[in-house]
Amino acid sequence: MSGVGIWFIGARGSVATTTTVGLLAIRSRLAGHTGMVSELPEVAAAGLPSLDGVVVGGHEVAEGTLGKRAEELSAGGVFPPALATVLAGDLTAADERIRPGVAAGHGTQREAADRVEAELRAFRDEHGLDRVVVVDVSSTEPPAGDVPALATLAALEAALDAGESPLPGSSLYAYAAFRAGCPYVAFTPSPGPRVPAVSALALEQGVPWAGSDAKTGETLVKTVLGPMFAMRALKVRSWSSVNLLGGGDGQTLADPDNAASKIATKANGLESILGHPVDGPLHIDYVPDLGDWKTAWDLVSFEGFLGTRMSMQFTWSGCDSSLAAPLVLDLVRLVARAHEVGASGPVPEFGFFFKDPAASDVHALSRQWDALVSWCERAGRGAV
Amino acid sequence: MSGVGIWFIGARGSVATTTTVGLLAIRSRLAGHTGMVSELPEVAAAGLPSLDGVVVGGHEVAEGTLGKRAEELSAGGVFPPALATVLAGDLTAADERIRPGVAAGHGTQREAADRVEAELRAFRDEHGLDRVVVVDVSSTEPPAGDVPALATLAALEAALDAGESPLPGSSLYAYAAFRAGCPYVAFTPSPGPRVPAVSALALEQGVPWAGSDAKTGETLVKTVLGPMFAMRALKVRSWSSVNLLGGGDGQTLADPDNAASKIATKANGLESILGHPVDGPLHIDYVPDLGDWKTAWDLVSFEGFLGTRMSMQFTWSGCDSSLAAPLVLDLVRLVARAHEVGASGPVPEFGFFFKDPAASDVHALSRQWDALVSWCERAGRGAV
Amino acid sequence: MSGVGIWFIGARGSVATTTTVGLLAIRSRLAGHTGMVSELPEVAAAGLPSLDGVVVGGHEVAEGTLGKRAEELSAGGVFPPALATVLAGDLTAADERIRPGVAAGHGTQREAADRVEAELRAFRDEHGLDRVVVVDVSSTEPPAGDVPALATLAALEAALDAGESPLPGSSLYAYAAFRAGCPYVAFTPSPGPRVPAVSALALEQGVPWAGSDAKTGETLVKTVLGPMFAMRALKVRSWSSVNLLGGGDGQTLADPDNAASKIATKANGLESILGHPVDGPLHIDYVPDLGDWKTAWDLVSFEGFLGTRMSMQFTWSGCDSSLAAPLVLDLVRLVARAHEVGASGPVPEFGFFFKDPAASDVHALSRQWDALVSWCERAGRGAV
Amino acid sequence: MSGVGIWFIGARGSVATTTTVGLLAIRSRLAGHTGMVSELPEVAAAGLPSLDGVVVGGHEVAEGTLGKRAEELSAGGVFPPALATVLAGDLTAADERIRPGVAAGHGTQREAADRVEAELRAFRDEHGLDRVVVVDVSSTEPPAGDVPALATLAALEAALDAGESPLPGSSLYAYAAFRAGCPYVAFTPSPGPRVPAVSALALEQGVPWAGSDAKTGETLVKTVLGPMFAMRALKVRSWSSVNLLGGGDGQTLADPDNAASKIATKANGLESILGHPVDGPLHIDYVPDLGDWKTAWDLVSFEGFLGTRMSMQFTWSGCDSSLAAPLVLDLVRLVARAHEVGASGPVPEFGFFFKDPAASDVHALSRQWDALVSWCERAGRGAV
Repeated sequence: MSGVGIWFIGARGSVATTTTVGLLAIRSRLAGHTGMVSELPEVAAAGLPSLDGVVVGGHEVAEGTLGKRAEELSAGGVFPPALATVLAGDLTAADERIRPGVAAGHGTQREAADRVEAELRAFRDEHGLDRVVVVDVSSTEPPAGDVPALATLAALEAALDAGESPLPGSSLYAYAAFRAGCPYVAFTPSPGPRVPAVSALALEQGVPWAGSDAKTGETLVKTVLGPMFAMRALKVRSWSSVNLLGGGDGQTLADPDNAASKIATKANGLESILGHPVDGPLHIDYVPDLGDWKTAWDLVSFEGFLGTRMSMQFTWSGCDSSLAAPLVLDLVRLVARAHEVGASGPVPEFGFFFKDPAASDVHALSRQWDALVSWCERAGRGAV
Repeated sequence: MSGVGIWFIGARGSVATTTTVGLLAIRSRLAGHTGMVSELPEVAAAGLPSLDGVVVGGHEVAEGTLGKRAEELSAGGVFPPALATVLAGDLTAADERIRPGVAAGHGTQREAADRVEAELRAFRDEHGLDRVVVVDVSSTEPPAGDVPALATLAALEAALDAGESPLPGSSLYAYAAFRAGCPYVAFTPSPGPRVPAVSALALEQGVPWAGSDAKTGETLVKTVLGPMFAMRALKVRSWSSVNLLGGGDGQTLADPDNAASKIATKANGLESILGHPVDGPLHIDYVPDLGDWKTAWDLVSFEGFLGTRMSMQFTWSGCDSSLAAPLVLDLVRLVARAHEVGASGPVPEFGFFFKDPAASDVHALSRQWDALVSWCERAGRGAV
Repeated sequence: MSGVGIWFIGARGSVATTTTVGLLAIRSRLAGHTGMVSELPEVAAAGLPSLDGVVVGGHEVAEGTLGKRAEELSAGGVFPPALATVLAGDLTAADERIRPGVAAGHGTQREAADRVEAELRAFRDEHGLDRVVVVDVSSTEPPAGDVPALATLAALEAALDAGESPLPGSSLYAYAAFRAGCPYVAFTPSPGPRVPAVSALALEQGVPWAGSDAKTGETLVKTVLGPMFAMRALKVRSWSSVNLLGGGDGQTLADPDNAASKIATKANGLESILGHPVDGPLHIDYVPDLGDWKTAWDLVSFEGFLGTRMSMQFTWSGCDSSLAAPLVLDLVRLVARAHEVGASGPVPEFGFFFKDPAASDVHALSRQWDALVSWCERAGRGAV
Repeated sequence: MSGVGIWFIGARGSVATTTTVGLLAIRSRLAGHTGMVSELPEVAAAGLPSLDGVVVGGHEVAEGTLGKRAEELSAGGVFPPALATVLAGDLTAADERIRPGVAAGHGTQREAADRVEAELRAFRDEHGLDRVVVVDVSSTEPPAGDVPALATLAALEAALDAGESPLPGSSLYAYAAFRAGCPYVAFTPSPGPRVPAVSALALEQGVPWAGSDAKTGETLVKTVLGPMFAMRALKVRSWSSVNLLGGGDGQTLADPDNAASKIATKANGLESILGHPVDGPLHIDYVPDLGDWKTAWDLVSFEGFLGTRMSMQFTWSGCDSSLAAPLVLDLVRLVARAHEVGASGPVPEFGFFFKDPAASDVHALSRQWDALVSWCERAGRGAV
């Protein structure tokens, strides 16, 4: 297999920039594969596309350049400054493939979707790519309400034809991607392909997608500690979580409306794993000083034999963009392979990567790993 | 199935006392099953013996009474003081079934083993028990050296016949237990049934055993966090561990010789899980002030994509006896069932409970759980 | 000096109950003075009243008895259950001295204040007390707004005469206390004696008071760590604080209006100590499971030489009532002594005990200690 | 005042290199004074020498260059890589003023001391300096034994004349420094000027010195938290400390003999502050992976009112060289000023900077600060 393109929604954001730098660095043998799940033998067994031929493009509403953004990120310790310098030329080339994102108030959503679809097709054709994976790494949007126009594909098409704008921004991109036959990765908790009308379109078009809301840090830890308590019959009484982060994501999440999506998907898994609701606050706070680094603190209060109360606490100090970027590459490869072998709609086995796994209610990481490995084994045989 | 006896080595220690109190409390409907793995449906499926008919006895070298020890433990917060009061009569009855342990320098090991074996048989006969499970919860001993007399059963028998004393204390009990046809649980890291001569005896006698060194706290956490890093291809660079504890176990482990057993089995699993050795100290410190409570702190330094360094730390504040006691009951039930269905020698599927699983090199908790559940499913059908 | 009474506002709350139990236990030689600042020689030098003759009474709006509340607190680990049992008789006697608190909607504030004043006078007379110290340990109220009727004593008296109800509940008690010539301790962040009209009354009546909002845990730590960073010229960039607590105080603070008082006084000191505003969230969360225990976690991000970023975090696991109770006894003794030696109005040197020290802008604990010790030395000579 | 020289023992070590880079950066207006106590107004009041004219030289036994070492440190995050690049020329110039250190086995200690003394005099003369402050930042040595030849200056001189080698390495440098009339800073716990014979020499020569073992992180925190517990009459029951570090200091301290000096001085202060011995381990572990960064974790278990047990834990994540370097500059300025105003022998008021303050048993940081500020005020008037 060859010729995969990545099309980022939010192409100059922290995650897209780190992913692009990483892709270029790996290809230039300036960096290894640490953090890339798709390089583990159990996952590589799926027959995944090489990173060598991957072309990057995308949409972006913000000003600036990939090179400038890479410098800022490296100054913040996300990757070594030398990488930004050495790869400056490649980053400029990638930057030229970035198109202006869809801005509110410029024409109808129908027009915007047509434009995005055309740009995706043009990108695929121009570079002779077998397939283009669209990856949403833009700012988190609020949850989509219960809008009639999003309930069915027919209702959506009618609303768009009527000049209405019912789609959340992320869902507009997903709609356009599916129309262009592009697989999709919903890396954020934004509605994206999850609104019913758009989800239906993916099935109709026969394109697979993965989502949503990548688990990169504190939630990842929860999905191994939660099962531990459950397997040992220890009763979790409260689980309090605090996330402090300073990057662009933090700023977006300082708006409670946007944070609602994130908090909902974060709280999700624990109750499912433990089999009962668990008390305790879940905070996401924007602390600009922390930059691209996130510090999360969790306190778990649990009860053991004869009612004895005990506790566990952990502090996670991670660099979000650095944790996210290799997963983007993993998901691009997996979704591309899923497309190649004919999968369509949400792939539940990719839930391993997500806080809110589409088409799955499995949250325990080891169960998700088993499912992923099994999928990869089948994909390796061309049968999923 | 009915009529199971538990015979503790170290019958008035913290773990045995808490287990005895818990068993009596559960039977009197004064306490529930929190912390008991054998009550989870996947494990109960094995067809485990009820706790209702279980009789407790044991050996003990220390003075005192179960009732007194229960009072001390409840004052230290291990269980509610009311339990010690209400169960005082039952504890006195159990205390009367405790026999003096084997003291060094009183006769030959042959004589001591004969005495223990006779006492086990007498206990089983007197109470009309189908089987008696011997559980070693006595103080940790140093690792057994490479002694010729322990290399084969024949060599051991010859040495004992010659009046020699080659057996570590824990192994003497295991030897006597197997001679009496009793299944065995090696709850501590002491050599016990793991010396080759004694291990061979178990097979010859057709009795199953489980071991060794129950994982109750910090190591338990390691065996879920370690796989998390591995599944995400994050490179653990150092893992530093500190265990502060004040109970009797802490005092024993303040002696570096005894701690050697413990430290060896604790360090064991992580390297196996990650696939490479990991730097970092592993301390076990005796802090009398902490009583039966243990505080462990771990710092994990890891590397992600493009070499970015991140870290995670956790603090575990647990009550060791309270965490251990329900596992003792679980293991008694499982080993009794294994005996009933004809298993013999170390049962690798019981590795779920141990830091140093006998006959197994699986350390990841979820893998161990899968193996345990599978064994229980087979045992439920009478076929292991 | 002899004959001091304590009159609690919130006499069956956690703090008042723990204080009462502690006072009785110390007097019966069942407990020592751990946690009591007034027993340190530098403070005792003030010539403080003995605890032996202290009589306890108070107001309470809630149902129940001191004895019942003591049982609940001891079950939650605040003090040994045996104390509640042994002191049951004394607690019943104390309970009989508790009067119904002022309930909203029962008559005018003038009538309520007159009733409270009369009860304070009656308590003092009946027990032949030299002085009665009123201590507010009731639930935290929202900040008082900028109300004209609270601006001056004359305006307040006119409003009360006119049948209006301008006073926050805590201020009504302070007003009545000052009218009765009773010194006062504002142990919570409620407005109490701090509204201008009531503060003026204290001066007019010549009674001293101390406040407000006792620092018992996380804030206490801040007031020693903050000066450390300042003295070392390290630049604190952000300080994030999370307080998880489950007691009655937690429940009250789950209401954002009430929490506003608390959060304002907590945030107060740090900026003053560091000399510049500091970024970072300050959360107070109600986690019922935690009972009377509070867990606080703070993350301090700071910058050192050449711009290097470093961090410190701490977790405080304390029992709020247990930390507060000895300070109540300390403050009663100190305020009583202040009254005896003729002090009037807020005593700035008692700021050592408070998050929001009245008549003082000193927050660094060691500076506050110096001031307290100096006051005690002067009081020991009868001259403050 | 003008013309101060710094002469480092260990001139290419992490601390000396960071100090040199910092000094040059400040002088070139490339960096500010964060972390420098001597820039706080209360300390600057002493009338301290400017950093502008300071010349750096020193002894070093290791190979390499300052420039190379600066590159390594900046790669490890100790300071921005750009500084090492910009200052490369200045670092080369400084490097040329570094002389080979005293190596064991090359001539007698008398000869070595004469050589060092001559080099110090030459450095002072060549650069026309008013005074040269010798700063020991070399590897920690074991404690000096109870050696007769070190007991008095006369005994020492006799032994040196007899060709003996009784002096620890650090003390040989201090001896030579005092002979040359140079003030001295014992930045490490090595014996240095503290052996009686050398200490006597300082007094005889009329030169001041400061020491020993700078408190930069975990111990610093202890000296503010310890007094907090004491001032609140809370009883510290155990205080457990773990220090994980990967730099050169860590490697030296991996040798238990060398660590003995460090551990002794670290444990010192707490007992003095609390007024009683405190249980709990104190570990210093070498974890190479951590580089120049140190992570320390402390668990404090304490008892409050009515015997209630509580705890506090903190984690300190600091860069040792970055914390140490500004203190070196502070101490150089203060010791130079002390020399100028005629102080002689150990200056107890400089204990603020040290774990094991010479000629002082004050450990509480705020008490030390008071003493320092008072000294500076007097020095500002020319009278200490």
